[in-house]
Amino acid sequence: MEYFSSVYELKCNECGKRFGNRPLSGCPDCFAPLEIAYDLEQVRGKFTRESVAAGPHNIWRYAALLPIPEGFQPDLPVGFTPLLRARNLGKRVGATNLYIKNDAVCFPTLSFKDRVVSVALANAQKFGFETVGCSSTGNLANSVAAQAARLGIKACILIPADLEPAKILNTLVYNARLVRIDGNYDHVNRLCTLVADEYSYGFVNVNLRPYYAEGSKTVGYEIAEQLGWKLPDNIVCPMAGGSLIRKIRKAFNELITLGLVEDKPVRFFGAQATGCSPISQSVKQGWDYIEPQKPNTIARSLAIGNPADGPAASKMIQGTGGWAEDVSDVEIVSGIQELAETEGIFTETAGGVTTAVTARLIQQGRIGKDEVTVAVITGNGLKTTDALAGRFTHLDSRAVRPRLSDFAAYLEELDGATNQKPELEPAGAY
Amino acid sequence: MEYFSSVYELKCNECGKRFGNRPLSGCPDCFAPLEIAYDLEQVRGKFTRESVAAGPHNIWRYAALLPIPEGFQPDLPVGFTPLLRARNLGKRVGATNLYIKNDAVCFPTLSFKDRVVSVALANAQKFGFETVGCSSTGNLANSVAAQAARLGIKACILIPADLEPAKILNTLVYNARLVRIDGNYDHVNRLCTLVADEYSYGFVNVNLRPYYAEGSKTVGYEIAEQLGWKLPDNIVCPMAGGSLIRKIRKAFNELITLGLVEDKPVRFFGAQATGCSPISQSVKQGWDYIEPQKPNTIARSLAIGNPADGPAASKMIQGTGGWAEDVSDVEIVSGIQELAETEGIFTETAGGVTTAVTARLIQQGRIGKDEVTVAVITGNGLKTTDALAGRFTHLDSRAVRPRLSDFAAYLEELDGATNQKPELEPAGAY
Repeated sequence: MEYFSSVYELKCNECGKRFGNRPLSGCPDCFAPLEIAYDLEQVRGKFTRESVAAGPHNIWRYAALLPIPEGFQPDLPVGFTPLLRARNLGKRVGATNLYIKNDAVCFPTLSFKDRVVSVALANAQKFGFETVGCSSTGNLANSVAAQAARLGIKACILIPADLEPAKILNTLVYNARLVRIDGNYDHVNRLCTLVADEYSYGFVNVNLRPYYAEGSKTVGYEIAEQLGWKLPDNIVCPMAGGSLIRKIRKAFNELITLGLVEDKPVRFFGAQATGCSPISQSVKQGWDYIEPQKPNTIARSLAIGNPADGPAASKMIQGTGGWAEDVSDVEIVSGIQELAETEGIFTETAGGVTTAVTARLIQQGRIGKDEVTVAVITGNGLKTTDALAGRFTHLDSRAVRPRLSDFAAYLEELDGATNQKPELEPAGAY
Repeated sequence: MEYFSSVYELKCNECGKRFGNRPLSGCPDCFAPLEIAYDLEQVRGKFTRESVAAGPHNIWRYAALLPIPEGFQPDLPVGFTPLLRARNLGKRVGATNLYIKNDAVCFPTLSFKDRVVSVALANAQKFGFETVGCSSTGNLANSVAAQAARLGIKACILIPADLEPAKILNTLVYNARLVRIDGNYDHVNRLCTLVADEYSYGFVNVNLRPYYAEGSKTVGYEIAEQLGWKLPDNIVCPMAGGSLIRKIRKAFNELITLGLVEDKPVRFFGAQATGCSPISQSVKQGWDYIEPQKPNTIARSLAIGNPADGPAASKMIQGTGGWAEDVSDVEIVSGIQELAETEGIFTETAGGVTTAVTARLIQQGRIGKDEVTVAVITGNGLKTTDALAGRFTHLDSRAVRPRLSDFAAYLEELDGATNQKPELEPAGAY
């Protein structure tokens, strides 16, 4: 269960010890998290704007900077999701250069987790795991189940028992083995560490975590490339385990080192739900540690009370001159609606967090109105429809008979109900 | 409400009369449907393999063969969805060259309707409509609502009252005006014809239908390009109104005429639910007409009992030497599960229809096992989760305490319940 790559290997963040490539996430000596260290000089000639442009239209165009074993043949066209100029939302929140990175439509399972899972499973196969899995708040479960099915590998997935029904169904449908755990994500994650050891499972975010996490860099590569190989002024990113926001920065730094973009300061802003805000609390307090919390929020995909990369994310954010904010469940739902109404993008609760936090940061003046700001949307609204339940009275509105006169009467009712002027043309049916 | 294009205009299918470009779907003289006729010679130099490859990675790379007004600036990166080699599903159904065209991840609203709506709305704006809309079985409602929001146009959408909750919510969230009609799709559609006239609404599939329908051609262009500018032997396509399958053929014919692909016979196979199968019935009977049906199926996105393009679709299928089949609701659900388990693709009920019909056609020998066959998946499973309700006992399975011993006991239970041998490694916890 080990392989050699001359380009990258596991390295301890703290003591600097190196470990080759194997399923290992923490340093046996000092217990710090391991990360993938690259020999960027070896990559330099192989990772240029031209080589990237000549690649496929998915994350594998960045393969030279991903930890994938030699000879790996990418199978799925994951990623390269749209970066959209958000003029309407920008107008509403007072920003002229706002962009949405839209992983709500990521292939294959509609969240950014598809990126990390595809990199992790490439390594799981190389390491010879017969069963893969994860601890998950939902999106990861969907992605592991789907990609394992496609690869013909068994999957065993552990989740907190109270996840959204759509996320549970969207795991079971791929014939994954799903175990609901009576506890929150942090309980599930601790159990997974034991299970991975005991059963020799390849858990993408446990023993394969360093490989998995590198997949998140592709969000950063894509943003830079889609901005015309330029870095933005600000990134607003949701935070659960704290990994994604750090990896976007790592991606930017690699692009600077390799000369694909000009060096410039980028400020990183983290977004959390107030009901689970250990990292935003840490940033606001100026801590270099986090105080674990017991999650209580509708943003279940962000409900990690003791985030593995929390301290590192907090320090990173503070170091860039950024900030972190958290919003209430009510604001989350408003954020979902605001993004849908203005840009036609239906995101899950985590995206509502990002949208609401972005608005607040602009209002606070922490993000300048003309700065280039990218808000990262990581998942699809169809997975958390229960968060909007009761929000739309129309869902149970009365059915109208299929006649023009009934239709006209109903429109009048609607106009009356919303206290708006009739929106009909003057030549209308009244 | 009219514009001129030297390249395309409305033309009557029957009498051949031409109408320029205006919001009109039927010939005032002979009542036959209008379609867009192109002057392909004008396009010849502008639509080559090279010009397409140099275009953006979405449907606008085919703009030269789409009816979009001069000066139109595409805003949304719609389409260019994955074409996946389906080795696992192929193995299960006995086909070696099976592909899935996967519009379950189409941007922005996860169905092929995004293609048609973007083309229709380009024209709606040119024609000056202040309100757009549609009659819809769900996916179209989602797409019109989302794209209208992004464009800042008002939307008024009419649906059968009993649509799936996820599709209703996924329309309301964009702040569209939604009217639930007490009737089936055919009732809704007739009402929309009256409403479009009375209120001067631009209904994408009513008075804008000829423009709208052309958007479906992009499915065909993409399949040919993704196969390396080759045509497949067979297309299996779900049928509701009967438009998509015809437009894929139109796309192939245009590519042949313009020399982008070699001419070869392609057989077209239509897929319907038995509970609403007017077109497959027509094909099976060898009719050149259809007998309208009253829909009764869980595949609500295909529940059109009196399909506008039904007769034309039936004749076309028969002319290519193809066939049509229909499957029961039980088979539809099995089709959804089969595609998910083998390829990691979660499709809606219509995709279950396509998958189940594809399997049957291969079993019948109507599709040869080594022929290149593309099954067209048009929508996402998260929109029809209710179709799978009760299918997975795990959804309400008991929650397991977060301890290794409890986990081990639960796995044993699962193994017992499924009557399988334990899937654990020999070194496991027993």
